[in-house]
Amino acid sequence: MTTGKQLYSTLADGKLTVEVVEKEFAAPQGNSVLVQMEAAPINPSDLAILTSAADLDNAEYTPGKFVADMPEPFYSAQKARHGQRLPVGNEGAGTVIAAGDTEAAQALMGQRVACVPGNAYSQYCYADAGMCLPLGDITSEQGASAFVNPMTALGFVETAKMEGQSAILHTAAASNLGQMLVKICQEDDIPLVNIVRKAEHVALLKGLGATYVVNSSDDDYFKQLKGAIETTGAYYGFDPIGGGNMVDTCFKAMEQVAVSKMTEFSRYGSEQAKKMYIYGRLDFTPTMLTPAYGFGWTLSGWLLTPFLANAGLETMGRMRQRVLAGLTTTFASSYKSRVNLEEMLTKEAATDYRTMKTGEKYLVTPHA
Amino acid sequence: MTTGKQLYSTLADGKLTVEVVEKEFAAPQGNSVLVQMEAAPINPSDLAILTSAADLDNAEYTPGKFVADMPEPFYSAQKARHGQRLPVGNEGAGTVIAAGDTEAAQALMGQRVACVPGNAYSQYCYADAGMCLPLGDITSEQGASAFVNPMTALGFVETAKMEGQSAILHTAAASNLGQMLVKICQEDDIPLVNIVRKAEHVALLKGLGATYVVNSSDDDYFKQLKGAIETTGAYYGFDPIGGGNMVDTCFKAMEQVAVSKMTEFSRYGSEQAKKMYIYGRLDFTPTMLTPAYGFGWTLSGWLLTPFLANAGLETMGRMRQRVLAGLTTTFASSYKSRVNLEEMLTKEAATDYRTMKTGEKYLVTPHA
Repeated sequence: MTTGKQLYSTLADGKLTVEVVEKEFAAPQGNSVLVQMEAAPINPSDLAILTSAADLDNAEYTPGKFVADMPEPFYSAQKARHGQRLPVGNEGAGTVIAAGDTEAAQALMGQRVACVPGNAYSQYCYADAGMCLPLGDITSEQGASAFVNPMTALGFVETAKMEGQSAILHTAAASNLGQMLVKICQEDDIPLVNIVRKAEHVALLKGLGATYVVNSSDDDYFKQLKGAIETTGAYYGFDPIGGGNMVDTCFKAMEQVAVSKMTEFSRYGSEQAKKMYIYGRLDFTPTMLTPAYGFGWTLSGWLLTPFLANAGLETMGRMRQRVLAGLTTTFASSYKSRVNLEEMLTKEAATDYRTMKTGEKYLVTPHA
Repeated sequence: MTTGKQLYSTLADGKLTVEVVEKEFAAPQGNSVLVQMEAAPINPSDLAILTSAADLDNAEYTPGKFVADMPEPFYSAQKARHGQRLPVGNEGAGTVIAAGDTEAAQALMGQRVACVPGNAYSQYCYADAGMCLPLGDITSEQGASAFVNPMTALGFVETAKMEGQSAILHTAAASNLGQMLVKICQEDDIPLVNIVRKAEHVALLKGLGATYVVNSSDDDYFKQLKGAIETTGAYYGFDPIGGGNMVDTCFKAMEQVAVSKMTEFSRYGSEQAKKMYIYGRLDFTPTMLTPAYGFGWTLSGWLLTPFLANAGLETMGRMRQRVLAGLTTTFASSYKSRVNLEEMLTKEAATDYRTMKTGEKYLVTPHA
């Protein structure tokens, strides 16, 4: 029996409580292994449970705990989790310190692995041996983000290929995930239009070798965007922002490029199919779609888990091998700050990582 | 040579001019026939060219003409048609008074036909013999709307079948098209959830035999909607409104029904795929999508022409035969007012038909 600390998030009576709880971890059974977690990133997808729309500025902070008001409509919208104590943290890496009796589990004993336990903000986690990625010489910090961002970025390219697309547009493109996508698209020779909002992000992506980087803060942003779409033929994109008018702007630019190639006016707009996927909600305000690009468009949600379920084991295995081979290059992540479980729940940390600023990702080190 | 009047719409210098113009019609060639147009409906899809967002309240009306300001951003958005004199009117019916020399064209001489000439607000139109639907004993008024609404309503059912759906949701469902959809779904035994906004429309659709009619003006509208979705399994719908929150409300209701069937909380929402098509823009304000139904949704534009091009000639032929057989029953249209070309361009008529009120469709009778 191992004793360790784990983070839990509970939504009840209009309040979100996140706290560190002491817990006992029994010996793993069957194909399961027990991982001593050494590093786990805070990804935007973790924030849905970790902070959601809670009022962190006015929360009550005590050591190893915060209690924050959850405003409406967000409180009611999460009715299904009211009163439930939920673990947090999709992914991380650490060392296998105990293993079930299967051959696959036993083979991992003592190895450093990346895993997706769902309770990664914990000193110990159970993981299925088949889902563990043995890291070899790679450190836990280097392997901590081996799943969510790499598989999502690769998933975009796989989705585009499945749908017969030869170019991709990506918004909020200076993120860790965006940087991976730049490198993947270079390796696979896929033209990629990157939209960023700061000159330093243009420089960052150009430094990685990106060809098309459009700055939404520039006066001629829309003209830049149309030019990049025209050159690449990217009528197909991925957006992690969700709210506001980013998707609308992309559809408008795509349509205007397509219309500029038409020789005859059509009241229905161009026949060019335009497709965007929303894969995140950096902005919780409504997505706004104006009637400015006819009816030849599709907007859809994109999520890693159903994509993988649909892609099948063979594709997933191929993707995992590619990630492992490139963990310190193509799929390398960088972190702004390292915090342990108690430091995660201070006002200073929580109000900072919840802003999800580009290039300012946090890494949780539960044993530090 | 035949002389007759035709309507033209021109957008230039910030103004929309619609006027009746005298024109000469030469003898038709090849597979073309000349139709003396007797009846043509004003459909929402015609208004994109006929009125668009023009300021009809303050327009200048003279006999057979109006000139109205076109506000921004709508003026600039239609840049591709600036200065062009466009014919108006998708569809209509009339009598073939001259024919080209092909067998198919000659066979139509003297017959009453429905057609889709694109300039139906005219005393005479050219039509391809292959696209004409001979009406037999059916009157021109009965056959005037044989294409746009019937083929669209049938197209929804065909699309649903192609995508493996067994139930459909339809908004603004009391329209002529909506009434057709009620009858088609009865014939094909497809559960249909109808959303309307008035008690009289509930009665209208129930009178046609509709089982699920939800009134968005009722206090318990959202509960009614969830109940109908739960009973029918309609996670798939068509919306002609476009702007505002109708699609958002449908997605919310679908997701809440799906979540209510889940035994375990998921931060990502249900795994139930939800799909809506926007096929019209009764509301020109932006479509608003809130982050309240995870990532398992798709919203797409739907338009008849690309659907038919994709469905192929065989499907299209089968659909046309079904329409013809049901023109006075399943696919019957009704009209509030009849106007000739000059009456169409009066303030009284134009400000009325542009509101697109349910059950208040106009019929243009160019020779009356």
